[in-house]
Amino acid sequence: MAVKQYTDVLPVVMNNDVVKNVAGRVMIGKEDGAENFCMRVFEMAKDGHTPKHAHDWEHEIFVHTGHGEVLMNNTWHPLSPGSTVFVPPNAEHQFRNRNDSLFTFVCLIPSGVAEL
Amino acid sequence: MAVKQYTDVLPVVMNNDVVKNVAGRVMIGKEDGAENFCMRVFEMAKDGHTPKHAHDWEHEIFVHTGHGEVLMNNTWHPLSPGSTVFVPPNAEHQFRNRNDSLFTFVCLIPSGVAEL
Repeated sequence: MAVKQYTDVLPVVMNNDVVKNVAGRVMIGKEDGAENFCMRVFEMAKDGHTPKHAHDWEHEIFVHTGHGEVLMNNTWHPLSPGSTVFVPPNAEHQFRNRNDSLFTFVCLIPSGVAEL
Repeated sequence: MAVKQYTDVLPVVMNNDVVKNVAGRVMIGKEDGAENFCMRVFEMAKDGHTPKHAHDWEHEIFVHTGHGEVLMNNTWHPLSPGSTVFVPPNAEHQFRNRNDSLFTFVCLIPSGVAEL
């Protein structure tokens, strides 16, 4: 079905030393017939974070709920609903949430570069 | 700047027979260095709509606020915050908002296929 609600899709929960308190879902990907780019939705609970890392593909991000932060150019930038972030290829970046409320964001990548 | 708030960007307002009560913004595009796909944010006020049309590129859509509808396969599907929609290439589609609240959605397309 082409129309879904992200909360109706079972998430992959990541909670280890590298990725903490994060639930991720592929909402639109190759299985849906999307050949060019892939939409994932991530929920990050309090004290959650992604790794500080870089890779040779870009991210296009839209913040749906909550108040997180993104590390880019060695500076933490605050994010709120309606924020957009472009992470260029090979740019070091990290996301974190230090608030009680769930930080929810959409993150798009080119097709085929990552499993989630 | 890679981090923006969509409401800080001046919209293009479309209000004619084809597109009604819609404000659109390119948030991440080629000018930002995004070579593969383009993020737009659209706000649609009450009684707003896009044209019923098809084109040879896909849409990947995430609903941020409000309650709109999408026409696909000759059926109107309700949309609410957190809904995602994949419109495959060449699939006829239309969006509308019959509610008082602003219907806001993110819509991604491959780079270079449309101005907005």
